[in-house]
Amino acid sequence: MEWKNQLEEYLSIVNRQLDDYFSIPEDKNKKVVEAMKYSMFAGGKRLRPVLALASYNLFADDLNKVMPYACGLEMIHTYSLVHDDLPAMDNDDYRRGKLTNHKVFGEGMAILAGDGLLNYSYEVMLRDALKRDEPKPYLRSINEIAKAAGIYGMIGGQTVDLESEGKAIDADTLDYIHHNKTAALITVPLKIGAIIAGASEKDIENMAYVGQQLGLAFQIKDDILDIVGDQEKLGKKTGSDQDNEKSTYPSLHGLEFSINKVRELTNSINEILSTYGEKGSFLYHLSQYLIDRET
Amino acid sequence: MEWKNQLEEYLSIVNRQLDDYFSIPEDKNKKVVEAMKYSMFAGGKRLRPVLALASYNLFADDLNKVMPYACGLEMIHTYSLVHDDLPAMDNDDYRRGKLTNHKVFGEGMAILAGDGLLNYSYEVMLRDALKRDEPKPYLRSINEIAKAAGIYGMIGGQTVDLESEGKAIDADTLDYIHHNKTAALITVPLKIGAIIAGASEKDIENMAYVGQQLGLAFQIKDDILDIVGDQEKLGKKTGSDQDNEKSTYPSLHGLEFSINKVRELTNSINEILSTYGEKGSFLYHLSQYLIDRET
Repeated sequence: MEWKNQLEEYLSIVNRQLDDYFSIPEDKNKKVVEAMKYSMFAGGKRLRPVLALASYNLFADDLNKVMPYACGLEMIHTYSLVHDDLPAMDNDDYRRGKLTNHKVFGEGMAILAGDGLLNYSYEVMLRDALKRDEPKPYLRSINEIAKAAGIYGMIGGQTVDLESEGKAIDADTLDYIHHNKTAALITVPLKIGAIIAGASEKDIENMAYVGQQLGLAFQIKDDILDIVGDQEKLGKKTGSDQDNEKSTYPSLHGLEFSINKVRELTNSINEILSTYGEKGSFLYHLSQYLIDRET
Repeated sequence: MEWKNQLEEYLSIVNRQLDDYFSIPEDKNKKVVEAMKYSMFAGGKRLRPVLALASYNLFADDLNKVMPYACGLEMIHTYSLVHDDLPAMDNDDYRRGKLTNHKVFGEGMAILAGDGLLNYSYEVMLRDALKRDEPKPYLRSINEIAKAAGIYGMIGGQTVDLESEGKAIDADTLDYIHHNKTAALITVPLKIGAIIAGASEKDIENMAYVGQQLGLAFQIKDDILDIVGDQEKLGKKTGSDQDNEKSTYPSLHGLEFSINKVRELTNSINEILSTYGEKGSFLYHLSQYLIDRET
C-alpha cells in the first residue's frame, strides 16, 4: 500500500475510535464533556496515535489491542495543549485557526476540561487493561505513558519552558525542554506499540530510539521553519522566536549546524528502520515527511 | 488499641510514605516538584488514605500492599484543591491558614503542579501494580480510583459546582455535586481497601456503601456548621454560604431535616459496621468523630 493511503487508513481508524470514546451519554457533567470534545476534535494531526499503530504493525496485526493506548496518548497530548494555551501559561487565543478552549468555555472550564482529558485517558486505558487475561504488557504500557507524561517527562519540560519565558537559556536547558516537552510523548507511542505487539526487548529499545531521534528532529525542524519557513505556506508569522528573544536550537547552535543535526538524526532513524525491511517503510516515509515538511 | 492511637499510627505511616514518594532527586524540574510538595505537606488531614488503611485492616494485615493507592488518593485530592483554589475557579488566597499554591508559585506553576500531582498519583500506583505477580486487584483499584476522580465522579461534580456559582440550584443538582465532588473520593478509599485486601464482593459493596453514606453525611455536616457552627472554633466566618446565596442542604431542605438526615446516615453506617464486630470499631469511631465534629 502507498504510505499515504496507509496514513489515511490509520487516521480513519483512530478518529472512529475517538468518536466512540467521546460518545458520552448526556448528564449534568455535559459542559465539561463538551469542552473536552471541542479540543479533541479541533483538527489535531493524530501523530502520536499513528506512531503507536505503525510501531505495533511492525510486529503484529490486530490493531484493536493498541487502540485504547493510542487514543489515550492523543487525549494526554490534547490536555497539555488546553492547559498550555491558558492565559497563565502561553496565553494563546487561537490554535489551528480556531479559538482556544478557554476563549470558548472560560478559564475555569478549560482547566477542568484539561484535567478531565488527562484523567479520562487513564480511565480508557485502565478499563481495557482490566479486561485482558494477561494484563502485564498493557499495564507496562500505561506505566510508560504515565512516566512520559509526568514530571520526568512532559510536565517537567513544560515547567522548564514556563520558567524560561523571556530568558536566555543554555543548550543544556533547551535540550531538557525539547527532550521532555516534545520528544517524550513522541517516543512513548513507538515504544508501547512494540510492547503491546509482544516485540523483543531489543525491538522495543529500537522503537524508543527512533522516537527520541524523531522527536528531537521534529522540534529542531520547527525552530528552523520559524527562521527560513514560507510565511504563506506556514499560515503563521515567521521570526516569532527571534522577536520573543526565545532561545532555539538555531539561535544557540547556528542554522547550518541545526540543518546538519536534523540530517544526522534522520540518518540514524533510517539506519534502524532499514533493518525492518519493507515493514519499516511506512515509518520511514512518515519520519521523512515530518522532517522535510515546509509547514 | 484506643481508636485515636490507631489514627495516629495510620497518620504516621501515611506521612512517612508520602515523604518517601516526594523525596525526588533535584533536577531541572525542581520548581514544579517544590510546588507539588508545598501543597502535599500543607496540613492535610489525610482522611482518604486513613479510610483506605482502615478498610484494608478489616480484612487483612499487611498495610504495605495498600499504601501506594492510599497515597495516590491523597495526591488526587490535593491536586483537586490546588486547581479549585485558582482564580478562575474558587479564587482562594488561603487554605488551612497558608497561602494557596498559585499565591506562592504563580498561576502557571500551580496549574502544572496540579497536573503533576494527578499524573504522579498514577505513576506511583502503576509502578506498584506492575511489580505484583497477580496485578488484577491492584489494576481494578486504580480503575476504581480513575472513575471516582473523573468526569463521572469528582471532575463531574466540580463542573456542576463551577456552573452553579451564584445561582439557585435544585435538590437534584445539589445531590449530584455532593455525591460526585465530595463523596466519590471518600467512597473509593473504603472500596479499594477491601479490594486489595481480597475481601468478598459483598464486603467490597458494604465498604462502598459506608463510604457513600459517610461522604454525604460529611458534606451535609459542613453545610450545617456554616449555619450553627462556632466561628471561633471553626477558625473561619460562618454564614458564608448564606452571604453567597449558595444552595446548601439546609437551605433547600431546612436545618432540622438536615440534622435528621445526618443522624439517619450515621445509623445506616453503624448498622453495616456493627456486622464486623470489634474490627469495625475504628471506622465506627472515625465516622462518628467526622459527623460530630464542631470544626
